[in-house]
Amino acid sequence: MFQLDDVIEAQQFDREILADIFEVAREMEKIEKNSLGSQVLKGYLMATLFYEPSTRTRLSFESAMKRLGGEVLTTENAREFSSAAKGETLEDTIRTVEGYSDIIVMRHFESGAAKRAAATAEIPVINAGDGPGQHPTQALLDVYTIDREIGKLDGIKVALVGDLANGRTVRSLAYLLSKYQDVKIYFVSPDVVKMKDDIKDYLTSKRVAWEESADLIEVASECDVVYQTRIQRERFGERIKLYEEARGKYIVDCDVLNVMQKHAVVMHPLPRLDEITVDVDADPRAAYFRQAKNGLYIRMALLKLLLVGW
Amino acid sequence: MFQLDDVIEAQQFDREILADIFEVAREMEKIEKNSLGSQVLKGYLMATLFYEPSTRTRLSFESAMKRLGGEVLTTENAREFSSAAKGETLEDTIRTVEGYSDIIVMRHFESGAAKRAAATAEIPVINAGDGPGQHPTQALLDVYTIDREIGKLDGIKVALVGDLANGRTVRSLAYLLSKYQDVKIYFVSPDVVKMKDDIKDYLTSKRVAWEESADLIEVASECDVVYQTRIQRERFGERIKLYEEARGKYIVDCDVLNVMQKHAVVMHPLPRLDEITVDVDADPRAAYFRQAKNGLYIRMALLKLLLVGW
Amino acid sequence: MFQLDDVIEAQQFDREILADIFEVAREMEKIEKNSLGSQVLKGYLMATLFYEPSTRTRLSFESAMKRLGGEVLTTENAREFSSAAKGETLEDTIRTVEGYSDIIVMRHFESGAAKRAAATAEIPVINAGDGPGQHPTQALLDVYTIDREIGKLDGIKVALVGDLANGRTVRSLAYLLSKYQDVKIYFVSPDVVKMKDDIKDYLTSKRVAWEESADLIEVASECDVVYQTRIQRERFGERIKLYEEARGKYIVDCDVLNVMQKHAVVMHPLPRLDEITVDVDADPRAAYFRQAKNGLYIRMALLKLLLVGW
Repeated sequence: MFQLDDVIEAQQFDREILADIFEVAREMEKIEKNSLGSQVLKGYLMATLFYEPSTRTRLSFESAMKRLGGEVLTTENAREFSSAAKGETLEDTIRTVEGYSDIIVMRHFESGAAKRAAATAEIPVINAGDGPGQHPTQALLDVYTIDREIGKLDGIKVALVGDLANGRTVRSLAYLLSKYQDVKIYFVSPDVVKMKDDIKDYLTSKRVAWEESADLIEVASECDVVYQTRIQRERFGERIKLYEEARGKYIVDCDVLNVMQKHAVVMHPLPRLDEITVDVDADPRAAYFRQAKNGLYIRMALLKLLLVGW
Repeated sequence: MFQLDDVIEAQQFDREILADIFEVAREMEKIEKNSLGSQVLKGYLMATLFYEPSTRTRLSFESAMKRLGGEVLTTENAREFSSAAKGETLEDTIRTVEGYSDIIVMRHFESGAAKRAAATAEIPVINAGDGPGQHPTQALLDVYTIDREIGKLDGIKVALVGDLANGRTVRSLAYLLSKYQDVKIYFVSPDVVKMKDDIKDYLTSKRVAWEESADLIEVASECDVVYQTRIQRERFGERIKLYEEARGKYIVDCDVLNVMQKHAVVMHPLPRLDEITVDVDADPRAAYFRQAKNGLYIRMALLKLLLVGW
Repeated sequence: MFQLDDVIEAQQFDREILADIFEVAREMEKIEKNSLGSQVLKGYLMATLFYEPSTRTRLSFESAMKRLGGEVLTTENAREFSSAAKGETLEDTIRTVEGYSDIIVMRHFESGAAKRAAATAEIPVINAGDGPGQHPTQALLDVYTIDREIGKLDGIKVALVGDLANGRTVRSLAYLLSKYQDVKIYFVSPDVVKMKDDIKDYLTSKRVAWEESADLIEVASECDVVYQTRIQRERFGERIKLYEEARGKYIVDCDVLNVMQKHAVVMHPLPRLDEITVDVDADPRAAYFRQAKNGLYIRMALLKLLLVGW
């Protein structure tokens, strides 16, 4: 088995490693459902060092650690450590925090911060999102969810819908899907937030079939996965009208559900606004809350692998 | 024994259920005093989902959970989940958080939020205060404290003093007292913050004797419980003079203590300003810090009942 | 052995007590390195009551408690308890919090607050810094670090460098060093932030040799410990030019290292800016991250001593 030292970016995983991680995640599902819980990480201490708040991600990691019997030191105000006023470097902060804990889960506002932290720390570092950069555990849980829901990754057809220009989620997902065989990706997005050329070129170079489409209904009828995302208002600034146009363009509602295949699923990284209508929730093909739950299993698996190994 | 699913409002409890909860709370007193602690909730995870900060209430719940061997996921910034910018619904947040925990303790700024959360969640929800609405665990600990201090609930005489118009505490307490026999309630408050008619009418309909009085000394000499409350400045806005008049009007000091019966007690939901003078604290009839402590036992009891039953 | 009730100020410790605490801290080093951890504080609950944020100090205490099997109630927003609006006294807050926990670690913005808290609480209180007042656990870890690094305290030569006027750290350290024999202290600081007369007079009265010097190189070549501190910009207000002059004046860099003796060490309470250059970090005589780690052992020792004794 491979040795996992840090979790920094989606690119560090190949399909064999992903398969191994997913196998551990499956074990974690069983542990979490066992009311006695597990004590496999008893005595271990995780520090959540969040330079910007992300309650959802933080709770998911902290739940994962505690479900395995470990303990947590929390900070959601890590900027205080290194405020402009005091001016401590990230490296100095990491050296201090690693003296108090056994693993660091870090969220930062700067791309590349996680890599710098991992280069400094002698204990494992997990990147819980670094600005516009990476959010590798989200990418892992997305692929894991597809595997769990559809039962395979080779040969799947995935529609990526919504804001494809700004979402690091869909970019990482496209990247990881390229590791599987015969994958077909559809991009369905308003013109202002189209998938950028770097990913398209990358997919082409990896012989992953992709096409852009403006017809969500037709695409949905073909796909195994409709991966919807939120149009992020904060990206539009003053251009409110453009935002309103974009956000209303591709909604996953019961009309979309009706054309989807029986085994297909709707996914979403959450939070959602109205890009998936609430009446979709009751359909068994609405997989987004199961997807959020899978984040717990993936994070349990990573914590176990980083702290005690296979 | 009854089945407790959620704790949403004082109205859900009748005197039999209250008696059962109080019996469990008594056991909790013993557990907390046992230095070995209890592990009855070991492996359980409580999420404190606070949309507005209330450090006192949060610490009380978290202490309760940990005294029973359980673990806690904390958030005091739950508004981030559902910020106007991102716009996630409470229901979606609850569906995510219930994937990470076994019970949710929620504080919200909107009346009715706890009921909505409980309707969504498949795990138990405890209302730790929802805006101007309910704060049922405070009401329970108040009644429990009267029972512990006076030794009975039927036949007691209670003075509710201070801000009776705005305090949800006194309103809930009046409501719960109506479930007992031969209770007499005195309302002693400045004119601007008198008890509202809905509660008076309710008490009348339940044949609970009540009267308004302007003479705190006389009332105090009659009562088993003098329940003092804080005049909340924030309710007066620009009307500073009115506030100053109201807050100075009924003070519990040694003159009041001197007329009180030997077995009677002074209660207060805390925090207090100067509506109870500090020299009262040393008198054994000052029950307000014991009352705060009872909040711990009541919350331990509720967590145990909701998670593992009787 | 002595009985430790609270930790309020450096002055409460004499050299015998310090030696005993340091002996326990040494045991704590072994416990922390043992992967099984310790359960000596299992069942105990520590409340961190922080009226101003200090993530570094808080994490150090919380790590200490959890490394010993204890549990933690956290608040970094304790001001909410006693906000001007609500106006609760510190004493009332302490009485409530002691009902929920077994020991209180308090950080406050007012000098003397810790003493008031300890006078109120029936459970132990540790002062984690009260405004311009005391920060006794920092003073203890500093002396402990000198003892660990140099192997003795009697007869040592210590240079205190940087902001000696405002830093409570160097003032407490000078105070504690006076308890040892044949100590020599050098003060090296810009004119605007010189050591104040009260400490100089105190040292003289205790027959501790001291001198002021403007020559860091010469002093560094003589000393066992070069204790560098940060020039705090916030102390200079509008006087930016004065600040810039002061902060650049005495830098610990490789030139300083080169004249230092082989057994000597550089210390710093952290965070640092550029008063120690980054290239010093790799030298084994750079002791400041080990010093931060010693804070963990000292706090573990104090928690053990206060809660379960020797």
